[in-house]
Amino acid sequence: MNRLKTTVVATVAVTLAVCVLTFTPSAQAQPGRGGQRGPRVTSPEVAADRHVTFRILAPKAEAVRLSGGDIPGVGQGAEMTKDPNGIWEVTLGPIGAGAYRYNFNVDGVSVIDPRNPATSESNANTWSLVCVPGSEFMDTRQVPHGAVAEVTYWSASLGRFRRMHVYTPPGYESGQAKYPVFYLLHGASDSDDSWTSVGRAGFILDNLIAAGKARPMVVVMPAGHTGPFTFGRRSGVDEFTKDFIGDIMPHVEKNYRVYTDKAHRAIAGLSMGGAQTLNLAIPYPDKFAYVGVFSSGIFGIAGGGPGGAPQGPSWEEQHKDKLDGTALKDGLKLVWFATGKDDFLVQTSRASVEMLKKHGLDVVYKETDGAHTWINWRDYLNEFAPQLFQ
Amino acid sequence: MNRLKTTVVATVAVTLAVCVLTFTPSAQAQPGRGGQRGPRVTSPEVAADRHVTFRILAPKAEAVRLSGGDIPGVGQGAEMTKDPNGIWEVTLGPIGAGAYRYNFNVDGVSVIDPRNPATSESNANTWSLVCVPGSEFMDTRQVPHGAVAEVTYWSASLGRFRRMHVYTPPGYESGQAKYPVFYLLHGASDSDDSWTSVGRAGFILDNLIAAGKARPMVVVMPAGHTGPFTFGRRSGVDEFTKDFIGDIMPHVEKNYRVYTDKAHRAIAGLSMGGAQTLNLAIPYPDKFAYVGVFSSGIFGIAGGGPGGAPQGPSWEEQHKDKLDGTALKDGLKLVWFATGKDDFLVQTSRASVEMLKKHGLDVVYKETDGAHTWINWRDYLNEFAPQLFQ
Repeated sequence: MNRLKTTVVATVAVTLAVCVLTFTPSAQAQPGRGGQRGPRVTSPEVAADRHVTFRILAPKAEAVRLSGGDIPGVGQGAEMTKDPNGIWEVTLGPIGAGAYRYNFNVDGVSVIDPRNPATSESNANTWSLVCVPGSEFMDTRQVPHGAVAEVTYWSASLGRFRRMHVYTPPGYESGQAKYPVFYLLHGASDSDDSWTSVGRAGFILDNLIAAGKARPMVVVMPAGHTGPFTFGRRSGVDEFTKDFIGDIMPHVEKNYRVYTDKAHRAIAGLSMGGAQTLNLAIPYPDKFAYVGVFSSGIFGIAGGGPGGAPQGPSWEEQHKDKLDGTALKDGLKLVWFATGKDDFLVQTSRASVEMLKKHGLDVVYKETDGAHTWINWRDYLNEFAPQLFQ
Repeated sequence: MNRLKTTVVATVAVTLAVCVLTFTPSAQAQPGRGGQRGPRVTSPEVAADRHVTFRILAPKAEAVRLSGGDIPGVGQGAEMTKDPNGIWEVTLGPIGAGAYRYNFNVDGVSVIDPRNPATSESNANTWSLVCVPGSEFMDTRQVPHGAVAEVTYWSASLGRFRRMHVYTPPGYESGQAKYPVFYLLHGASDSDDSWTSVGRAGFILDNLIAAGKARPMVVVMPAGHTGPFTFGRRSGVDEFTKDFIGDIMPHVEKNYRVYTDKAHRAIAGLSMGGAQTLNLAIPYPDKFAYVGVFSSGIFGIAGGGPGGAPQGPSWEEQHKDKLDGTALKDGLKLVWFATGKDDFLVQTSRASVEMLKKHGLDVVYKETDGAHTWINWRDYLNEFAPQLFQ
């Protein structure tokens, strides 16, 4: 292992967006026609000790900062310094294994890394993506891999084409068996691409299934935004519910070999997607046996928070009949919440859990370290998925 | 229709990377947390008359240019002009229906459009993607849609993880039938993502299949680069051949419901991928009944061109036994070449066609308008795919 540290540097295989310990020389040439001219720049460069160096050639810039809130120490941005060739650089770390979105701010302009084809789509833009290997549960490993598909469907509810991502487990594409289905919803800053890019959902499922920890399942990741996002915008919730019930679920159940009963359906989401999860699981009590809420709850329940205090009847009052009815509890196997102690929605989570318990629901609630980040959401997925369909 | 032109503007549904006439107000708000601060910028904006306006907020920049070689008139770059708010803008067009890669050059730094989540991966970087609707054959239309999956596989030949994209046609994911398989290879500036992003292969197949023009088929789009690309680098060809024969085809035939005989296999590629196609179809004469070469041929055959004049025995001499043998012609249904009159490889194509004909192969060769661009390659796919497996 000493040889490893002194003679080679682990670099990410950027063109594949895989996350794996690949030991190649650091001076990785990428002279494709789409690349930059001028001095050759390698970025990002992930060292074996998990320090990551980010670089960009910008000779004329006055100030360049790295953005990427999930990377420890970056916060609102990390200063980069310029060398005599005009290459700006910053080294951070050691950074925990995982995938991280980042971009550069060059004199006020958001820029993805021109040397890195790996990206992750957000709600309103696209980020560069770097993967720091070394995780048992989310690295790209020597196990059978499923497929992650982009699927275009016509939403009659919304009157336009929409997109979802669908993970099919190893064996699905060659086989004839039916599978249970897990709907996994993204947050306000995300798109339907996010769970499988920065969230590494496909690789997490691959590893869980290979280890016998999770049942093979189809994972459906729809687009949660139906328009510009603002906290408290109720029509967005209503529109997504219409799309989900009227188009997404029917599309999946028509086009995939999945079971169509409550016992074989799960739903979970992070942040905005956690609120959407509750806005589907409670009003449609016959649909989901497994419910997961990551870093979220009913927005506004804690008297403030996103959306502010609710107007008119509370969410609890609106859904009282469903919360107290037998249909919800009948066949309900799991209601699982997890939120970080430093998450800005931790009070929302606590209040939502208490409210659900008051109505007789058996809620598992876990408070972890950390805040409102993908670091936690990947962990939560890794913990939630093994509990499904067992 | 007059109302259309005067009161609404067609904007691309950027977050979905679909290509469809959606009439929405042009002031499309995208205030997600990942977006830019400052004046609200809409980009790209596609008007009903197919003029496209590109914008970027860069108040401190001295010069901003638009890059995007396939966009008519852009060439080496189009100048953009700055308004008093620091928003740089250029309007181009009318632009023919299709998908176009572009980015901004801000004082020498390559920047994707910070307001557009739609991207297309290249060999060494990522481009922004704009789709101009209005095409019968490649728009996102009201037809059944297949799925486009990212698939990770272990290449034992290369000793690392690799990625391919796989299109499964409508009905595949719910069904049990077997399908023929079409291997579709990208060019030197591309990645395995390119055929389904800028190339719109999934939508082209969807439309052809819905119209009854093409048979439902699985389309496999592997990663053609095995290392940094340089013209004439033979080891890259050899490495890709090893990966293709040793890992890609076995992975597909094990993991997908596809026929595994010559009659149900096709292969085609553009530019570098066209040369790779010939380097698979001829040396492995029992594998493919349908062969397509787009804007390509045997590199170096025309006495110059990419890679220069060959050293040692020519490609023709090396493959003489296969070219003259019966195995190649036995069951061979189609050898189809197409190249633009202004393509820098047109001599390579002509010489390759002549050489193959000299060995008794029945080659269809078509010279079209245009040059070495995705505009032609989408057309060629649309013309080639209907001829397969009929």
